Formats: sequence, C-alpha cells, structure tokens
Amino acid sequence: MYSVVDEAEITDRRLLRGARTRQIVLRRAVDLASLEGLVGLSFGRLASDTGLSKAGVQTMFKTKEILQVATVDHAREMFIDAVINPIRSTGHGVPRLRAMVDRWIVYAETPLFEGGCFRAANLADYDSRPGPVRDALFRDRDEWLAFIAGEVRHAVVAGEIPDTDPDLTAFVVDAVLCAANTALRAGDPEVTDKIRRFVDATLAG
Amino acid sequence: MYSVVDEAEITDRRLLRGARTRQIVLRRAVDLASLEGLVGLSFGRLASDTGLSKAGVQTMFKTKEILQVATVDHAREMFIDAVINPIRSTGHGVPRLRAMVDRWIVYAETPLFEGGCFRAANLADYDSRPGPVRDALFRDRDEWLAFIAGEVRHAVVAGEIPDTDPDLTAFVVDAVLCAANTALRAGDPEVTDKIRRFVDATLAG
Repeated sequence: MYSVVDEAEITDRRLLRGARTRQIVLRRAVDLASLEGLVGLSFGRLASDTGLSKAGVQTMFKTKEILQVATVDHAREMFIDAVINPIRSTGHGVPRLRAMVDRWIVYAETPLFEGGCFRAANLADYDSRPGPVRDALFRDRDEWLAFIAGEVRHAVVAGEIPDTDPDLTAFVVDAVLCAANTALRAGDPEVTDKIRRFVDATLAG
Repeated sequence: MYSVVDEAEITDRRLLRGARTRQIVLRRAVDLASLEGLVGLSFGRLASDTGLSKAGVQTMFKTKEILQVATVDHAREMFIDAVINPIRSTGHGVPRLRAMVDRWIVYAETPLFEGGCFRAANLADYDSRPGPVRDALFRDRDEWLAFIAGEVRHAVVAGEIPDTDPDLTAFVVDAVLCAANTALRAGDPEVTDKIRRFVDATLAG
C-alpha cells in the first residue's frame, strides 16, 4: 500500500515539475517569438536560454510546429489575462471598449512580451504560410475581432454610438492597435496620444 | 583612339550587364522578403533562385545588411511605380486618395510581390531591431504616411472632408491597409469590400 501511495506522489510531483518546466519554456518562447518571430524559434535556443537540455526541450514538444502552436496558445492566454479578464466587470459597450484600449496600451507599452504585441509580430509572417501555426494565429485573431465587434454591437444597441458596422469597426480598431504596436516599438513618442484620439473619434456619441 | 573607344564601350556594356543582373537579384530578393521576411534573405538562396553563383551575388552586395537595405529601396521604387506614379495626374485631395486606395488594392491583390505588401511583411519584424535595415523601412513608411497626410490636408483645405488631423488620418488609413494585406493573404473574401466601406466613411463630406 505505502509503496503505491509513494509512487503516485512521485508521479504527481513529476507531472507538476514537468508542467512548470513547460511554462518556463513557453514563457521564453513567447518572448523570443514576439522579438524575432515564431519562424526563428528553435529547441537549441530555448534550451540555452532556460538552462535546460536541448533533448529535454525536444522531448517536451516533439516537433517545431507543435512548439510553435503551443507558443501561440500560451501568448493567447497571457493576452487574455492582461487585457480581457481585468475588464470583464466593466459595463458592456463604450465603457468596456475604452477600458480594453487602456489595458491594451499598458500591454503594449510595458510590454508583456519583450518584442511587444505577439499577434502583430507574427500574423504578417504567417499570412502566406498555410498550416497549423497560421490557423492558430488566425483563430486567436478572429476571437479578438469577435470580442471587439460584440462590444461595438452593444454600444450601437445601447445608443452610445451611431449605427455602424461592428465587424468593420472591429477591423479598423485592431488595425490601428497593430500599427500602434509597430510605432511604439520603433519609438514614436506620439503613438499613445494617437490611439486615444482615434478612440475618442470612433466612440463619440 | 579606337582602342580607347572600344575599352569605354566594353566598360559600358559591362556596367549595363552588371546593373541588369543586380535588378534580377533584387527583384527576387523583394519577392522572397515579402514572403519570408528580410531576415531570412541569404546569398545562397538568391544565387540558386536566379542561377547566378553565390560568390557573384556576394561580390555584388558585400554584406547581408547592404543586400537588405538595397532590397528595401528596390521594393520602395516598385511601390512608387505601382501606386504613386499612376495617380500623380489625379486631382489633389479626395480624388487622389480614392485613386491611391484603388491602386493599392490592385497592388495588394495582384500581387506585385509574391508575399503581398512588402512594408506590412517587414515593418513588424524590424521594429525591435535597430540598425540601417529598420531605418530604411521606417524612412519608406514615413514617406508614405507623409504622402497620405498631404492629400488629407488638401481635402480639408478644399472643404471636401470635415476638419481632421491629417497625421492621425494617415496613420489610420495606413493601419487599415496593412491589416487588409494580412487578411487578403489569409484569404478573407470580404476584405476589399471592408477597405472600400472604410474609405467611404473616412472620406465622406
């Protein structure tokens, strides 16, 4: 009996340690991919950056493509934690859209990822490369656009803004935030002010 | 005398052939960089794609960085030929902005470069990498934004559109075109329609 319990405990500890190691590797992968793109990710670089063995990292993810998809998913979860979860209690429509842009500016300025917005850094690289990585990137993008469009719809229904096409507005808002991320990284000092003026004009009653 | 003339002729022919070869290499470099990014450009790949020797391509550009900057300049010239030069005779302001967007849609849809908009494909890759390549990319971007802002200013002065901040409008127009390029590459069928509706809303009197 005791021996069985001990084995289960050891397995639990191993799984936990495995999960933690995975988090550490993925966290580094997200930073690298935000800086240099998902294309450049390699088991060797991740191993040397995290102090693990290359064989250990490779065993964890099997193929580069699986690593890339896992990195997209990890970035997506971090983005939701940073930008979406904190505004879930803010009222729908314009208040939530404004709060979302405020959180997004913090996300892009701080920045959560070393190279700034993960989505902006990688979508353009993968638009011409069909496959599971592009699918994961565009799934994340579509979810984000649907979130914005949903809040724009709320704002229209509540009469907070004039009748408009929510999908088109979401497309434009996302486009401006992507461009703002690039401008931020390049050191444009006026970009935060530009985002706020754009939001004021777009969400004016 | 004759011998001098002959030598000059031979030199002329050599220079001409050198210039033509350079154009062929740069044309391929622009396609590759629009597909896979400037970061991935290599002398070896360009040599095998164009049928030249790797040593020949390397002699032409010396370093990878010089090749990358020359590729940005070549893409810039092709963009100006495709989008800007054909609209120089169109009236300033709203007519020229509309003509510009029409030309841009052809440029992105055809596409002029295998991977679509060169600027959109590379700016985000280089925003976190200071150096001459980033400088060339942002110089090109600033020139493009200044062109759009100049025409918006004309439209405001002529009373074609309400008083607005030309730099902000240029920033938003460029952002939407960049995002549209990514959506086009990814096969979004509604994107051309989205651009036209955005332009209609932005340039409404």
